[in-house]
Amino acid sequence: MDIKAYLNKKKTVVDRALESLVPAADTVPSTVFEAMRYSLFAGGKRVRPILAIASAEALGANTAGLLPLAASLELIHTYSLIHDDLPAMDNDDFRRGRPTCHKVYGEAMAILAGDGLLNLAFEVLSDPKRTKTLPPARLVAITREIARASGCFGMVGGQVVDMESEGKEIDFPTLEYIHTHKTGALIRASVRVGALYGRASEKRLKQLTRYGEFVGLAFQIADDILDITGTQEEIGKDVGSDLRKGKKTFPAFYGLEESRRRAHEVSDKAVAALEGFDRKADPLRDLARYIVTRVN
Amino acid sequence: MDIKAYLNKKKTVVDRALESLVPAADTVPSTVFEAMRYSLFAGGKRVRPILAIASAEALGANTAGLLPLAASLELIHTYSLIHDDLPAMDNDDFRRGRPTCHKVYGEAMAILAGDGLLNLAFEVLSDPKRTKTLPPARLVAITREIARASGCFGMVGGQVVDMESEGKEIDFPTLEYIHTHKTGALIRASVRVGALYGRASEKRLKQLTRYGEFVGLAFQIADDILDITGTQEEIGKDVGSDLRKGKKTFPAFYGLEESRRRAHEVSDKAVAALEGFDRKADPLRDLARYIVTRVN
Repeated sequence: MDIKAYLNKKKTVVDRALESLVPAADTVPSTVFEAMRYSLFAGGKRVRPILAIASAEALGANTAGLLPLAASLELIHTYSLIHDDLPAMDNDDFRRGRPTCHKVYGEAMAILAGDGLLNLAFEVLSDPKRTKTLPPARLVAITREIARASGCFGMVGGQVVDMESEGKEIDFPTLEYIHTHKTGALIRASVRVGALYGRASEKRLKQLTRYGEFVGLAFQIADDILDITGTQEEIGKDVGSDLRKGKKTFPAFYGLEESRRRAHEVSDKAVAALEGFDRKADPLRDLARYIVTRVN
Repeated sequence: MDIKAYLNKKKTVVDRALESLVPAADTVPSTVFEAMRYSLFAGGKRVRPILAIASAEALGANTAGLLPLAASLELIHTYSLIHDDLPAMDNDDFRRGRPTCHKVYGEAMAILAGDGLLNLAFEVLSDPKRTKTLPPARLVAITREIARASGCFGMVGGQVVDMESEGKEIDFPTLEYIHTHKTGALIRASVRVGALYGRASEKRLKQLTRYGEFVGLAFQIADDILDITGTQEEIGKDVGSDLRKGKKTFPAFYGLEESRRRAHEVSDKAVAALEGFDRKADPLRDLARYIVTRVN
């Protein structure tokens, strides 16, 4: 199968869902919707929603009813990017090749756009119009999955430790904590959301969870490598920004070559976790491989 | 009945629920839990959770299973205070007589503590351990109620328009928009959460919703008056801070006397909305009256 074509196709579907979820930019209070849309439609790859969809597809589920839930993962991802970029946090001026939200709309509006996106995710997850095909108990389980991954035991927690580590010598377990929480938790949750939606058996849920953990790690190692070796065009922000901020990354501990080797090893483990799944899981397999091809 | 004793008793119950919901301050990542707890346990009156409880009690419901949901309203209220106080927003140094969260923990940690509290509310609302007595469909409806009140069509929206109005001459409809969204929405939702939990009939839900709207307005007018006439000790922040920030308030439009008159009028309307409720609604009635006694 052609993974790039698959990704493009799904991205279109996810973008359409997102378009329908976020009020138009002239809805009162318009500035915040404008700011939310600015960051949401800045060319994101929609990795998390696509992982959710591919995971449900791997179980043979019809994914029409999954789209709003999958899209809510992107709302949460975007909220976290806007808040992480703030001057008080990572102080980043560029994201995906454009000025960051607070650079365009000011700090107050960027904080509120982030808050608005986070709230919107839970509005969507509890909206009977969007979720009517799903039994409420399953919807609650999916909401729980997302809230946990987004909160203090997930993304928020990762960012807290990342902030506290700035300018400090950190050890590898601390880097791992940051990785598994700041990026890993929501990626893992994305795969699990698809699995819960697709009514995975306990065994399949375990396998998909393992897959999600390895893919999250592969994704993060690849990101760390690209911060050093990528072009500005490829990564949409300044090359070497982690390094300049004194942020420890995977290559800082293991060097580029060993990091590349590990990225591939972890990607192989993700594929191996899907043993026994049939060809419907091929998009997940190809996705795991695709994530690390960029680092070669 | 003695409304002060009632409020004290319920506050203790709510505080106990909150204590059990927020991880201890030495849980990793500890700084954020410390910051969350700092703001959460700063002496809040727990108006929103108590309104939810009193509303369910008015319907004769056993409120034990409501406590985590009611407490989640306070988590969301506290998140909004922390973010509103930030330098990029209202830039307040004091809250409830103590330095604001960002003054103690820095801006980054205050943003994350707010994000953490907002996420935690939805973690609680989807936690099967905390909500097992409630049918999932009702839980989803309650979650929806809270998410809507907290997001861009509620609190976030109110703060957006408040920010945009700073230093500008605003008209009364704009002030009303700010009031009904920034404070009113979550107070209205609190009463409705209790009503939904207590399985209110359509008629009762409508009445309680009206009650919630009037109480929210009375609360806000009283707050505006106290900003001028209260002592620093009473209001826990600098007297006249709205005025100095050029924030338009109710008294700025109508003067103190007329504002007082309206506060009482609105409080009476809240009580009148409960026509046909029996004595179990007395705490709601007394609460509506109590809110405006402070402005005499």
